[in-house]
Amino acid sequence: MATVIKPDLSDVPAYMAGLGHCARSASRVLAAADTAQKNRALLAIAETIKQGQSDLRGANDKDMAAGREKGLDAALLDRLELTDSRIDAMVDGLLQVANLSDPVGAITDMAYRPSGVQVGKMRVPLGVIGIIYESRPNVTVDAAALCLKSGNAVILRGGSESIHSNLALAKSITAGLELAGLPATSVQVVATADREAVAQLLTMREWIDVVIPRGGKSLIERVTADARVPVIKHLDGNCHIYIDDQADFDKAIAIAINSKTHRYGVCNAAESLLIANSVAEKVLPPLAEALLEKGVELRGCDSSRQLVAEIGIATEQDWGTEYLAPIISVKVVKGLDQAIDHIATYGSGHTDVIVTENWSHAQRFLRQVDSSSVMVNASSRFADGYEYGLGAEIGISTDRIHVGVLSD
Amino acid sequence: MATVIKPDLSDVPAYMAGLGHCARSASRVLAAADTAQKNRALLAIAETIKQGQSDLRGANDKDMAAGREKGLDAALLDRLELTDSRIDAMVDGLLQVANLSDPVGAITDMAYRPSGVQVGKMRVPLGVIGIIYESRPNVTVDAAALCLKSGNAVILRGGSESIHSNLALAKSITAGLELAGLPATSVQVVATADREAVAQLLTMREWIDVVIPRGGKSLIERVTADARVPVIKHLDGNCHIYIDDQADFDKAIAIAINSKTHRYGVCNAAESLLIANSVAEKVLPPLAEALLEKGVELRGCDSSRQLVAEIGIATEQDWGTEYLAPIISVKVVKGLDQAIDHIATYGSGHTDVIVTENWSHAQRFLRQVDSSSVMVNASSRFADGYEYGLGAEIGISTDRIHVGVLSD
Repeated sequence: MATVIKPDLSDVPAYMAGLGHCARSASRVLAAADTAQKNRALLAIAETIKQGQSDLRGANDKDMAAGREKGLDAALLDRLELTDSRIDAMVDGLLQVANLSDPVGAITDMAYRPSGVQVGKMRVPLGVIGIIYESRPNVTVDAAALCLKSGNAVILRGGSESIHSNLALAKSITAGLELAGLPATSVQVVATADREAVAQLLTMREWIDVVIPRGGKSLIERVTADARVPVIKHLDGNCHIYIDDQADFDKAIAIAINSKTHRYGVCNAAESLLIANSVAEKVLPPLAEALLEKGVELRGCDSSRQLVAEIGIATEQDWGTEYLAPIISVKVVKGLDQAIDHIATYGSGHTDVIVTENWSHAQRFLRQVDSSSVMVNASSRFADGYEYGLGAEIGISTDRIHVGVLSD
Repeated sequence: MATVIKPDLSDVPAYMAGLGHCARSASRVLAAADTAQKNRALLAIAETIKQGQSDLRGANDKDMAAGREKGLDAALLDRLELTDSRIDAMVDGLLQVANLSDPVGAITDMAYRPSGVQVGKMRVPLGVIGIIYESRPNVTVDAAALCLKSGNAVILRGGSESIHSNLALAKSITAGLELAGLPATSVQVVATADREAVAQLLTMREWIDVVIPRGGKSLIERVTADARVPVIKHLDGNCHIYIDDQADFDKAIAIAINSKTHRYGVCNAAESLLIANSVAEKVLPPLAEALLEKGVELRGCDSSRQLVAEIGIATEQDWGTEYLAPIISVKVVKGLDQAIDHIATYGSGHTDVIVTENWSHAQRFLRQVDSSSVMVNASSRFADGYEYGLGAEIGISTDRIHVGVLSD
């Protein structure tokens, strides 16, 4: 049985430092834990969550009732709710992470140096990770699973509206960890909705190695501004598809359609279409027709509007906007150089695509576009940890000092 | 001829934002520059520094005179001085960096995914780097060379005592860049000693991708506390040599002596010796004798002092101290576990060494010691960018989110 010591939540800095201290100790045990033990813990957590399902639903009901009383909108309430099928999905997620290969301890680049010394690199855990997220209880389990598999201790701070659900999940997670013989403090959920807890999490340099904010732009900007610990963040995905003057037209149309319309609300959806002037007359009309047919609104430059009457006016603001909606901006550019300049000016460094059959154009695009993912003749929707073979992901970092995809 | 626009230094924030803006533009050109062009620039800078040697000496004389007037101590004045041989060394450094391989554009892990998409990783520049350092003019050239080779624009802010030397060097660097057809603003030296310039450099998130402080602990701590941009820092090197109960004694003594006495003032020198209890009686007396003979002061725990009378008393503070001097702390430990615990408690995450013939002990040490370099049967002095085959280095990062060695 887990020994539960009721934390003193009146002194938030002391409480948070206590979590930090415990996480640091747990992180040392986790770093040394072998794959089998970590997987046993993941499976045990899956089991304890299933066993605690009715308690979990009860706790979630409390959050939902409070949320309704508080007047949360339908979208927020939807994300807050834990239905049986969502709990099943969380459990499935744990099993999937257990099936991923263990990144810890992998050694690469082992080679003898002229001095006779043998040198290589070993992948190691980060240590203690703080995750700050909105009121989505499923993130609690997803994040805990990824941190555990990668040998990191984690302190989780979800949105205040989900606190009962998160604490109920924490109880199951803790029980699972103990069943597998790992420290219960490997995964800790902050038990207070006090905002001071976030301020502490962002500044405890002694205990926290990195903070990952997961949520909307305003959350991420707040975290970045206040953090005194390193932050790995996933910001905008203002992704571009550039159709080069030497593009294969069929590929161009298929890639643009897939990138824009496969899913609208995701960070790797295309938000802006750049088309080389010399081919615009040929490519844009059929492409615009296909997009309009799918219900996508087009907002373009003057040249594009001369080619397709249905294209609305794009303002300066449109070029920098991540719509996350069935809207796309369209600009006719002189060619490769102007496309690269446009992406440097308005892009967000997430994913940018060139469609071309010209080797040198492709090479220049790959070298000169400074984004997390730069693609040739592929849909931006491929920018994804699973698709890249990197395992599960929390988000795609657009920082310069980073892991491009924070994988299993 | 370079066009020199006299900067307006009265409005420091505007001046720094101007440097940032220019650096960002230059960084895009540098990222696309090929190896030959970058090397031409490095060689041209070497040439312009040689040609400007007398002006450079004149500027340095001004700094030296001001420094003497200000009452700088001998060590600071020594680091400030640019002798002819030091200028030669800077020029040599440029040629060496030109000879290093170009890290930019290197592609690894290229593989086809089940979807049919081919995915790999490309090394790219960081963008704009800010470097803050003490009054050592040679760092101006070393840092500029490494940033240039790695395709990054750089803003250099040296100590105020070296401002004339740094500006003279900047003039030569700029001339060399222009000769090679690269933007003069690829390397910019902050032309004011106003401290507000540092505050700006540390907070201009729009223009600066990463700041690297290079200098003593107080500089690095100040930078870390104030920075709102990512920092790659090189902090303490409190390096340990653990002599395991299954160590080869000859190796143990040779490694300990080399690690401690090869050079005292460097970050990868050993500062603490841990010895397994069961072999202490055999290893410590001859090792202590050898260290004492070299003039090294030993400060130890009670057990060590019972074995060697000349060992002084180590206080709690000694275990956490990076002496950078002919002093070493000595602790007799029960065995591997206590050694690992001690390193976790007192170490600085730089370089730690186990001397052992036991495979499992070596593996556990490699896995459980969380330092930038973890070594088996090698001197800590091997922790070095050149020795690792990573090229020239600015420093060894002990951060968790990092490049272990910031190489060419």
